[in-house]
Amino acid sequence: MQSKTKEQIQEQYNCPATCKKTGLIEKYKRHLPVTDKTPLISLGEGNTPLVQASNIPKLLGYPQLKIYFKLEGLNPTGSFKDRGMTLAISKAVEDGAQAVICASTGNTSASAAAFATKAGLKCYVLLPHGYVALGKLAQAIHYGAQIVPIKGNFDRALELVRELAEQAPVTVVNSINPYRLEGQKTAAFEIVEALERQPDYLCIPVGNAGNICAYWRGFKLYNELGITEASNITRMHGFEAEGSAAIVRGEPIKNPETIGTAIRIGNPASWQEAVRAASESKGKIDSVTDEEILAAYKMLGTAEGIFCEPSSAASLAGLIKHLNSGLIPGDATVACVLTGNGLKDPDTAQKVTTVDLTPVEAEISALRQSMGL
Amino acid sequence: MQSKTKEQIQEQYNCPATCKKTGLIEKYKRHLPVTDKTPLISLGEGNTPLVQASNIPKLLGYPQLKIYFKLEGLNPTGSFKDRGMTLAISKAVEDGAQAVICASTGNTSASAAAFATKAGLKCYVLLPHGYVALGKLAQAIHYGAQIVPIKGNFDRALELVRELAEQAPVTVVNSINPYRLEGQKTAAFEIVEALERQPDYLCIPVGNAGNICAYWRGFKLYNELGITEASNITRMHGFEAEGSAAIVRGEPIKNPETIGTAIRIGNPASWQEAVRAASESKGKIDSVTDEEILAAYKMLGTAEGIFCEPSSAASLAGLIKHLNSGLIPGDATVACVLTGNGLKDPDTAQKVTTVDLTPVEAEISALRQSMGL
Repeated sequence: MQSKTKEQIQEQYNCPATCKKTGLIEKYKRHLPVTDKTPLISLGEGNTPLVQASNIPKLLGYPQLKIYFKLEGLNPTGSFKDRGMTLAISKAVEDGAQAVICASTGNTSASAAAFATKAGLKCYVLLPHGYVALGKLAQAIHYGAQIVPIKGNFDRALELVRELAEQAPVTVVNSINPYRLEGQKTAAFEIVEALERQPDYLCIPVGNAGNICAYWRGFKLYNELGITEASNITRMHGFEAEGSAAIVRGEPIKNPETIGTAIRIGNPASWQEAVRAASESKGKIDSVTDEEILAAYKMLGTAEGIFCEPSSAASLAGLIKHLNSGLIPGDATVACVLTGNGLKDPDTAQKVTTVDLTPVEAEISALRQSMGL
Repeated sequence: MQSKTKEQIQEQYNCPATCKKTGLIEKYKRHLPVTDKTPLISLGEGNTPLVQASNIPKLLGYPQLKIYFKLEGLNPTGSFKDRGMTLAISKAVEDGAQAVICASTGNTSASAAAFATKAGLKCYVLLPHGYVALGKLAQAIHYGAQIVPIKGNFDRALELVRELAEQAPVTVVNSINPYRLEGQKTAAFEIVEALERQPDYLCIPVGNAGNICAYWRGFKLYNELGITEASNITRMHGFEAEGSAAIVRGEPIKNPETIGTAIRIGNPASWQEAVRAASESKGKIDSVTDEEILAAYKMLGTAEGIFCEPSSAASLAGLIKHLNSGLIPGDATVACVLTGNGLKDPDTAQKVTTVDLTPVEAEISALRQSMGL
């Protein structure tokens, strides 16, 4: 198939200003499992910025490197989950569901609750009752979800979610919902449109391992459709946290641990597809330590003015690891996915940086001396 | 002047996908005080969603009402301040500044710190030393700002900021910086482009009163340029919090109080221009109580799946007040500006909603009974 010209790509995929009020299903419906009858439940998800790093390449000693950060934390509920949830909830409405249900304490429950409310559906969030930390659930509660603490563990909560969906008119929106990854693949489309090509590498955090699969589906589709050139396809580099690196170790981890709570998952749901995405694209799934994650998290703030969830910084931490090991060349074009908004975890921000708050005399000369001006 | 057709407006203002990596100055440079020499310091600000309310009009008893929420909390640092800061920092770099400075504990300091870091400038945040609440400053600190607590009050901090700027190569980015309102007016452009017309009414929180002026400049300019029809111009309805309603009362308030900390300002910097904006547009500046603000804040969450800062909800609270008093007709097209992200204030979210966390037996029939399914 002939590749399209840049102008054709731009023409086809320009976002008219009105798409800011219609969301990503409307823009990408030709690539999504929707029909004219599917109601479009949108909160303005997608269409997130792709910001080129100004200072990190030089800081790392790779001045030729081009890093682009995909700011998924600027989605309506603060994470990439909204891309999949707009589709999952729209399809639930189309299928006549009266409610949706999930077992989650974090970004999934926030996103599910927001889109369900927008659609006029009830949202139930099942949780082990000892596990309920209100801070993590503040968003879901604000969006009106009903929190259901059960006398059982997380695995039992997931079992009950599936059983309930079989018996009652309620749709599961956990990662077993097939529409979620379909919606998430639109982020790959947006990166291609902004760069007018595919990046050489994608660096992405891996927890449940669904998002790396979604991006690979997106890049592969644009390649198959001839929107990008056959020779230009992205290598997928995914990064688990070392304390929950089931795929890297090759076995599930019973008690996963990492500061990146959004990727603290010991038995990823999309394990096999993620392994295929890495091997088909000639990429790699690797792990990074909590120290590397936190260093990257701080570097994003102090060198680029970007505030992401700690787990999001696994993408930059992984990029640094693979630059230094030679797996990614120092003059590559790399997209790093920052999956969630730093405001979701204010505690970590305050813990990792200490500031000197010694007061200064309220007069100019003392101030200039203190500030070195 | 002839009005342009909808097609012409769309053609002129469509956002090519590449504008997601270049920011709002690039898109709107013809309307902003920049030249080819101005460096563009962007974090992907602007281009925020405009989401139509699905459920609130019926809830309020005005089924014909069209409400559009402008989600300014989805800017890179979580508030509308980024629109002005991209321009203020870009101009500071153009003018040879080595640092920027502000006196602020909230959204301004976060935005200033992020854009300064992106530009490679130092950012100083001056504060009364007894006033420092680390939670409110977590973002500025994460972005690498230097916090300078002084032995003096807030007014003294502002004085020192101005004096320092006169003596040293440092640019003030508080609201006295004229570029901030110029950048902020782009939000009005985006609303017009999304609706393909001007809304009948704009409802907006009023604190320092700059933002209502910026929107009015934007709407007025599009009208003067013939981009919208002469008969179609937005009425500006601004809302102060009752405990800090200086403009409504007609005098500065010494100790302003409101739950909406972002609009807790007793002597608005843009007072006179805001009064003119309201009168020229045949709108009104009014006040809403903290109870009305909190009710609107909760309604946004539980009816629309939107999580904003409490102060942002003053726009919806005000709309409700003016609908009920007849000042705004029940079939109008209204844009409500939601200025900041709810994640900036997780404490209020947790305080206003109580949840029943009584655990349920981990088996289907008990669950179905508890959930009413």
